[in-house]
Amino acid sequence: MLENLKKLVYEANMELPRRGLVTYTWGNVSGIDRESGLVVIKPSGVEYEDLTPEHLVVVNLNNEVVEGNLNPSSDTKTHVELYKAFPQLGGIVHTHSPYAVGWAQAGEDIPCYGTTHADYFYGPVPCARHLTQAELDDGYEKNTGTVIIEEFTKRNLDPVAVPGVICHSHGPFSWGKSPAQAVYHAVVLEEVAKMATYTRMVNPTAAPAPQRIVNKHYMRKHGPNAYYGQK
Amino acid sequence: MLENLKKLVYEANMELPRRGLVTYTWGNVSGIDRESGLVVIKPSGVEYEDLTPEHLVVVNLNNEVVEGNLNPSSDTKTHVELYKAFPQLGGIVHTHSPYAVGWAQAGEDIPCYGTTHADYFYGPVPCARHLTQAELDDGYEKNTGTVIIEEFTKRNLDPVAVPGVICHSHGPFSWGKSPAQAVYHAVVLEEVAKMATYTRMVNPTAAPAPQRIVNKHYMRKHGPNAYYGQK
Amino acid sequence: MLENLKKLVYEANMELPRRGLVTYTWGNVSGIDRESGLVVIKPSGVEYEDLTPEHLVVVNLNNEVVEGNLNPSSDTKTHVELYKAFPQLGGIVHTHSPYAVGWAQAGEDIPCYGTTHADYFYGPVPCARHLTQAELDDGYEKNTGTVIIEEFTKRNLDPVAVPGVICHSHGPFSWGKSPAQAVYHAVVLEEVAKMATYTRMVNPTAAPAPQRIVNKHYMRKHGPNAYYGQK
Amino acid sequence: MLENLKKLVYEANMELPRRGLVTYTWGNVSGIDRESGLVVIKPSGVEYEDLTPEHLVVVNLNNEVVEGNLNPSSDTKTHVELYKAFPQLGGIVHTHSPYAVGWAQAGEDIPCYGTTHADYFYGPVPCARHLTQAELDDGYEKNTGTVIIEEFTKRNLDPVAVPGVICHSHGPFSWGKSPAQAVYHAVVLEEVAKMATYTRMVNPTAAPAPQRIVNKHYMRKHGPNAYYGQK
Repeated sequence: MLENLKKLVYEANMELPRRGLVTYTWGNVSGIDRESGLVVIKPSGVEYEDLTPEHLVVVNLNNEVVEGNLNPSSDTKTHVELYKAFPQLGGIVHTHSPYAVGWAQAGEDIPCYGTTHADYFYGPVPCARHLTQAELDDGYEKNTGTVIIEEFTKRNLDPVAVPGVICHSHGPFSWGKSPAQAVYHAVVLEEVAKMATYTRMVNPTAAPAPQRIVNKHYMRKHGPNAYYGQK
Repeated sequence: MLENLKKLVYEANMELPRRGLVTYTWGNVSGIDRESGLVVIKPSGVEYEDLTPEHLVVVNLNNEVVEGNLNPSSDTKTHVELYKAFPQLGGIVHTHSPYAVGWAQAGEDIPCYGTTHADYFYGPVPCARHLTQAELDDGYEKNTGTVIIEEFTKRNLDPVAVPGVICHSHGPFSWGKSPAQAVYHAVVLEEVAKMATYTRMVNPTAAPAPQRIVNKHYMRKHGPNAYYGQK
Repeated sequence: MLENLKKLVYEANMELPRRGLVTYTWGNVSGIDRESGLVVIKPSGVEYEDLTPEHLVVVNLNNEVVEGNLNPSSDTKTHVELYKAFPQLGGIVHTHSPYAVGWAQAGEDIPCYGTTHADYFYGPVPCARHLTQAELDDGYEKNTGTVIIEEFTKRNLDPVAVPGVICHSHGPFSWGKSPAQAVYHAVVLEEVAKMATYTRMVNPTAAPAPQRIVNKHYMRKHGPNAYYGQK
Repeated sequence: MLENLKKLVYEANMELPRRGLVTYTWGNVSGIDRESGLVVIKPSGVEYEDLTPEHLVVVNLNNEVVEGNLNPSSDTKTHVELYKAFPQLGGIVHTHSPYAVGWAQAGEDIPCYGTTHADYFYGPVPCARHLTQAELDDGYEKNTGTVIIEEFTKRNLDPVAVPGVICHSHGPFSWGKSPAQAVYHAVVLEEVAKMATYTRMVNPTAAPAPQRIVNKHYMRKHGPNAYYGQK
């Protein structure tokens, strides 16, 4: 079932330790087959060095396991919630990459300080609020997704233009049209979190990039007249 | 004698340089056989690249060497003191991993800023006080253990729920039910010390995670109804 | 065409990931053949692991592609503008190396804090101003070059004595008499940006090195009586 | 001539890039044969990957080359000056390792914040003053040595108990009874500079370790009753 998607999800998961984004089992990647509404995701608590494509778990959008002998990632319900709310998503990643966690723990949006950031994220990486006691008690992982969606709705953000988020006192989620692109955005998010941290070290009151530069760089890569890369 | 434990202690010691936690000989791992009350520990000042299982030293809970031709780690009496006070411990690690040392040198608890921390340490990583002149003069290494135990007693901490400590102006000790788990906690401690340092860089007055989130994450992994990982 | 220069430009490009200066495709190196006025440059958006010398694109000083099937780097017009203004240049590099970006995002010159810096850059690494809306709208990449040249003219800087710049909210450009030397200067720029960041962390109000020490070190390596290295 | 010392000096030089202490040619190690008063040192500006034992240069204590076809390190006169003033020294290292340079550029002693530092350096790593214009003009490298010696004399420091220094706006020198030990101390100096930087990030007003702890740790390893390591 979904052999091709499993291969893509497996490859995307293995890219996380190669890119230095995970310690032990602190991360997971999923991918969705939109036609069948089935999600392939890493099993919970399995070491990357032991992971094989056969370990991957298939769940449906009701969070029911439809294939696989292992428990799916404990964050599965967050992934599913995001897939349901954002139909453009083909892959989702969660990590505890340290610079992004640094900002998440500070509870601040990562400001769009420059063009590296603006090339991929159209504006700050938003920081989603803490969950309430009720939200923690009843459906924590599902509500993590709900709170992210609430943040995007409240700020009127397009998840394609802002392909990631940090959750207050927790860490980053990122996504893309495929599992591979979701991982790419996880790498970018960590890199811009690092650069933003360095900028704070140089000058704690540094200003974000002017909006006109953010517009130019984002549009150069993603606008209707984009001209970066090969066609 | 204790061939299996020696293998585990050797493997756990070798994991320290693999994980980037030690420079030169600045670290050691021990393990205890609770039945016989014997502790296997790294010899003092031996380079990791030269270390073999045969070099390991066996001591009893009176700090007497019962097997081995080399001096045991200079920190042996600290380990023994902790094994005597905390019967749940099967392995102990000491390192000078740099981010944890950064906090130890600042003399502050590492605040529980987020879920990465709360997944393993239920609350701040405590910073144990300086030793007095008398404590330094008469049984320094034993008293290092005593002061750690005092800190846990004073704060009413469970060493299973808080599997590590930093000693003021010195560095971290961590532990677990086995030598391997003790090293795992040493890696986690360094990682959360790093993330906490980054959080301070982003915002020097950042607040710790709300207690409800600490509770949720610790219990999700370790409580009676834990549901992380495979059963 | 230009087989030798292509080899040099290819080698210089491949040195960027080896030196840890690029993530994904975030960097490019070019070289110029002054006799023919032709520039060899990396294609846009091609991964370093896939890059071969055959992928390189040849453009003239009117930014017209004269050889190659791929689009040249989106930054080509910046390179060309600098080659036209600074006839001493044989190679140019652009990266998003993180410490240099940290300073660029803070919008500050990198102060000449010490001899590592003064050995290669005679004075601060200048930070060029933001582009205006008009400059962004009409010829962004060309104007990036124009603004760099303006900064050097305004400050009366010799591009041989100051072989690099950071662009506000963007990142570093560096150059040299050859593509290899341009990359060397990109490595130096990142290293001095890192050291300068550390200096700020130790003391946010640290003073630059005295001018007499900057003079001595720069001249020891580059002055008429230079005596560093082999003759 | 001095084949054994050359081997030791070569090995010690090659340890610098292995330990991540040098970029390009920014470092050098020398060793002295006290009987003949001859110093073996790295040639100036030669890349480490190209270095062979045959490249090493032999100079006497009058800074005259007595063997070798290449120019000795530009820092040779600093080494010679230190060998003449400190007869206990068998090897000397100079690097631009980034954390140590961070402190040198800030112009501050590296405080003895903890036991990692006190295990090797009995007190702060001193920061030697800037050279005057006259000292720069007439014998810069020799005077770099003179100013270091002045600092040790003024503070009444024992170069065995404090095996290194940082020079304001420049970088670290370290030494030992052999070239290998000098490199060991260069690694330690960079490591404690890093830890001290992290401590400043956690708390910019952190206090040094109490003197009693510095005494205990230094003496545990180096005092007449030292008991660290094997005998």
